[in-house]
Amino acid sequence: MGHVHGPNAARQPGLHLKYVVDPRAEAAGFASAHGASMASLEQVLADPAIGGVLICSTTDQHLGHALAAVGAGKAVFCEKPIDLDLQKVLAAQPRFDDARFLLGFNRRFDPQFARLKQQLDAGVVGKLETLHLVNHDPAAPPPGFIPTSGGLFKDFTIHDLDMARWLMGEEPVEVYATASCLVDPEIGRQGDVDTARCVLKTASGRLCVISNTRRSGYGYDQRIEAFGATGMIRAGNVERDTVHTLTDAGSTGAPIMPAFAERYRDAYRAQIDHFAEVVHGRAEPFTSYADGVAALTLAEACAWSAQHGEVFKL
Amino acid sequence: MGHVHGPNAARQPGLHLKYVVDPRAEAAGFASAHGASMASLEQVLADPAIGGVLICSTTDQHLGHALAAVGAGKAVFCEKPIDLDLQKVLAAQPRFDDARFLLGFNRRFDPQFARLKQQLDAGVVGKLETLHLVNHDPAAPPPGFIPTSGGLFKDFTIHDLDMARWLMGEEPVEVYATASCLVDPEIGRQGDVDTARCVLKTASGRLCVISNTRRSGYGYDQRIEAFGATGMIRAGNVERDTVHTLTDAGSTGAPIMPAFAERYRDAYRAQIDHFAEVVHGRAEPFTSYADGVAALTLAEACAWSAQHGEVFKL
Amino acid sequence: MGHVHGPNAARQPGLHLKYVVDPRAEAAGFASAHGASMASLEQVLADPAIGGVLICSTTDQHLGHALAAVGAGKAVFCEKPIDLDLQKVLAAQPRFDDARFLLGFNRRFDPQFARLKQQLDAGVVGKLETLHLVNHDPAAPPPGFIPTSGGLFKDFTIHDLDMARWLMGEEPVEVYATASCLVDPEIGRQGDVDTARCVLKTASGRLCVISNTRRSGYGYDQRIEAFGATGMIRAGNVERDTVHTLTDAGSTGAPIMPAFAERYRDAYRAQIDHFAEVVHGRAEPFTSYADGVAALTLAEACAWSAQHGEVFKL
Amino acid sequence: MGHVHGPNAARQPGLHLKYVVDPRAEAAGFASAHGASMASLEQVLADPAIGGVLICSTTDQHLGHALAAVGAGKAVFCEKPIDLDLQKVLAAQPRFDDARFLLGFNRRFDPQFARLKQQLDAGVVGKLETLHLVNHDPAAPPPGFIPTSGGLFKDFTIHDLDMARWLMGEEPVEVYATASCLVDPEIGRQGDVDTARCVLKTASGRLCVISNTRRSGYGYDQRIEAFGATGMIRAGNVERDTVHTLTDAGSTGAPIMPAFAERYRDAYRAQIDHFAEVVHGRAEPFTSYADGVAALTLAEACAWSAQHGEVFKL
Repeated sequence: MGHVHGPNAARQPGLHLKYVVDPRAEAAGFASAHGASMASLEQVLADPAIGGVLICSTTDQHLGHALAAVGAGKAVFCEKPIDLDLQKVLAAQPRFDDARFLLGFNRRFDPQFARLKQQLDAGVVGKLETLHLVNHDPAAPPPGFIPTSGGLFKDFTIHDLDMARWLMGEEPVEVYATASCLVDPEIGRQGDVDTARCVLKTASGRLCVISNTRRSGYGYDQRIEAFGATGMIRAGNVERDTVHTLTDAGSTGAPIMPAFAERYRDAYRAQIDHFAEVVHGRAEPFTSYADGVAALTLAEACAWSAQHGEVFKL
Repeated sequence: MGHVHGPNAARQPGLHLKYVVDPRAEAAGFASAHGASMASLEQVLADPAIGGVLICSTTDQHLGHALAAVGAGKAVFCEKPIDLDLQKVLAAQPRFDDARFLLGFNRRFDPQFARLKQQLDAGVVGKLETLHLVNHDPAAPPPGFIPTSGGLFKDFTIHDLDMARWLMGEEPVEVYATASCLVDPEIGRQGDVDTARCVLKTASGRLCVISNTRRSGYGYDQRIEAFGATGMIRAGNVERDTVHTLTDAGSTGAPIMPAFAERYRDAYRAQIDHFAEVVHGRAEPFTSYADGVAALTLAEACAWSAQHGEVFKL
Repeated sequence: MGHVHGPNAARQPGLHLKYVVDPRAEAAGFASAHGASMASLEQVLADPAIGGVLICSTTDQHLGHALAAVGAGKAVFCEKPIDLDLQKVLAAQPRFDDARFLLGFNRRFDPQFARLKQQLDAGVVGKLETLHLVNHDPAAPPPGFIPTSGGLFKDFTIHDLDMARWLMGEEPVEVYATASCLVDPEIGRQGDVDTARCVLKTASGRLCVISNTRRSGYGYDQRIEAFGATGMIRAGNVERDTVHTLTDAGSTGAPIMPAFAERYRDAYRAQIDHFAEVVHGRAEPFTSYADGVAALTLAEACAWSAQHGEVFKL
Repeated sequence: MGHVHGPNAARQPGLHLKYVVDPRAEAAGFASAHGASMASLEQVLADPAIGGVLICSTTDQHLGHALAAVGAGKAVFCEKPIDLDLQKVLAAQPRFDDARFLLGFNRRFDPQFARLKQQLDAGVVGKLETLHLVNHDPAAPPPGFIPTSGGLFKDFTIHDLDMARWLMGEEPVEVYATASCLVDPEIGRQGDVDTARCVLKTASGRLCVISNTRRSGYGYDQRIEAFGATGMIRAGNVERDTVHTLTDAGSTGAPIMPAFAERYRDAYRAQIDHFAEVVHGRAEPFTSYADGVAALTLAEACAWSAQHGEVFKL
């Protein structure tokens, strides 16, 4: 993710990308291309000119790096999830200052979804009743990724769980999830699932369905439908182009965006723009440590439900 | 429903609408407008010229009327559901001849959904993995309807349960349903719900989500998305017209079809066309008594799951 | 066209299809299927029970049949064009009563175009400035049709010329047309063209483009775009169904309506419904003899312009 | 246009933006923001480190600046039009080297239109027969702009004339244009028009319609429809986002792109990327001085036709 966030930080007028920390030698080219130099984490944290740190390390390093940066008084942007272990995340929570920690739930920064939220809040379709979130990855990850991923719910569904909380404005009190291994038997052999549906219910009775697959076969399907008392709002997929062909056989059009880097390009930029505001103390982080705790708690509930075939009550 | 099916039978070249049975005097005008005369059920069943009967009475009369017609050797078209009581339906099953009984699951006859099924069967998106069925009524029924309806699942979801079975080609082995009363508190006072989500799972791991509400606020939302190994197929809503307006404020377009009579006009016609073939012994009924039993069983499972907050295993 | 209008008249409650006049013996089956009997034109016109006549004969017979029917005091529905010879049409005009003659410009009855007109008149996009009419036939007519057709402009463009007059609410004062023979060289050998563009200009400066081809290769393309001072309104093509498929290669959808009978099914019905009102003296004909004269005059202007390569001033 | 091209040059890895030439003092901020310094044209042309020049001055200065740059041996990117006076453009032509001069016809670089061209060339719809180009500006320019603009055809339609030549792959031999002043009477008082339609015809009979207005009232309408022997390809408008709302009143969606900077953002970037290749001698300019001559010739033909009400033969 450093290859996504680094260039965005480099082009943000309110930020200056000073250091790249990466044990791999090939990162030097990346650093110099963006006007930065290579350094160790210790050097970075010891530099008083550094106001903020972007943590894009592997998931198992997120929490340690974040704690070190926070300890050094830096503003922190941290890729999700904070950690795969909810107990560790909860234990570390008191050491984080919500005003200085931005969690990488990029979808809240997406202009499409932001527009949907804005219309919902403006009451365009009345009071929200139900929600449908589609999050389908284009193609299954390499087998080696699965054991370190934390499983489908903590690694992938967690984005939707954050979106559900944000859009519903209310915490789920019941969670049901069911899952299958339909895409790649190897994923099953490694103890994970690749296809899932989750249903969340809030205290007021709002219902949210989450649709996940590791492999859509048709691109990166990212859609939201929000149903209110007087209508519905949907944010559709972004298509590669607007060219259509008509023949006697029918119409053909462009595929949807193939993967996250293209689909959420604007979201990733807006997220770093927001981090610049956080670093300079001009904005409260939009997605906080507490949001990370809540989404991880729900992800564990989903995983439990799918494993036991029972509804999980929160 | 007689006002839907009667005219379709009258215009079907293979059928002749001879009698209308209706205790209400005002039905005489309807009968004569379609070239039929009023008669009692006994008269109709005693007439050897009658090859088939369309049963469009109230739900509590369906089974009695169907048994009488079957007993008289007539081909039977019967509106869904056969009955609200699964035990009664199972008990009567031996008295029905599958070759002469057509159940009114109209959606299988819809050209949109038939096209989707045809493409699925042709393997256009590979092996089916998951399904998403949207069935949102435009506006809540009058309060007096609820006590006789059998509840949301038996009255409304039953259509989707039949579609799920048909499209997946495999029986669900697990059912989860959750529901709320968000549309009209009066529905809740009468012991029913108005908003629900169901998740079905088959033995091979296929997942199907059903989305229901009694009141969409934006018309009669009838959509299907079928996700396969290499892509997805969707049948979208039918819009009233193709006229769009563009201004600086954005685009506006026509609403979707407002209700079932318009949306499924072609399906209702195709269903009666098919019944003509059944009457004349030229086709096996597409939707059988056994399909009615299966859908009702699933509807009861959904109702139980929603009531107990637990997964139902079949 | 009798096979389009006859059944629509037979099903119209305000009309009774009593006679079919057709020299071909095979028309007897058609007549009896719609509850009519075969008769000669003389018999029909002598029958005092006959209030109106549908003239669907060949173009060269339209005017003679219409005059005979008008002379017998019948209301007349006449397929376009009245005649290919403008002088004959003008000479006969005094013998027609505008209140009893309906010309077959079916497109004005199309619900899509009627909606567009309604929004234009309601001022949704401000004052109309320009218009774009697309009228592309799916496939070239058989070669034998061309010599009797009157040529592309009188046979085909005439529909668009009527639509232009209706939608602009103002008569063209300048006409430019240019044409090619790109579809079938045989059409060229018979002295006609198969591909054309016309531009009309009114006194107030409104501009209208007409796009015509005898063979689209992708169905029956029937679209209108109306550009006003504050926006635009478009009536798009009607697609066969709403089913779309998405794969990595892109999306595919249904073709547009293949030909006039399907595309204008509702328009043809509405036209006959309107004729029933005309017959019973309850409505002024929507498309009059005078409209036929005006459209034919413009068609001759287009033909002249295309032939001479000059602008025609009216 | 310097504010569009400058940043794109600054971010292009193959270019280094060294100087900004601008008589206005406020340009200094722009220059320093992009790592450049202010200089006179003479200084720039005298600097042997300079390989290429972007000419974004006012139209009346384009040719003089281009000649100076070419004389100094620089590669030249020049905004369109080269000059408003065709005779001056023709006279200067021998002094330009086609291999070192890129004309700013940005639309050829648009990914939407490039995709359409690619599918046309691939024969997806057979041999091209006709073309429809829509180019509607969102809002009329300030009155002061009109006298220096060269008129609608040389200033605005010229883009479409270049696209027509590129897409048809064949030169027009006949041009017809008609125009009105419907948007702003002040434009008429200054001797110009604001609404036009042009029809081009090639020797083989291909037809191209161009639709222009200075004020659409609904954004920057930029569409192409290409009709071939077996189908059609269209490049549609780009919408601001994919969010749609459905209520009983119908659907609403986002407006199309409001203006050229947003709509052609990717095209402007691709154009400068291509200029980098031209500067380094790795590519032939895609849009040449000769293309500028041809488009200007056609623009003069359109202006003449609209003024005289006659067809112009080339």
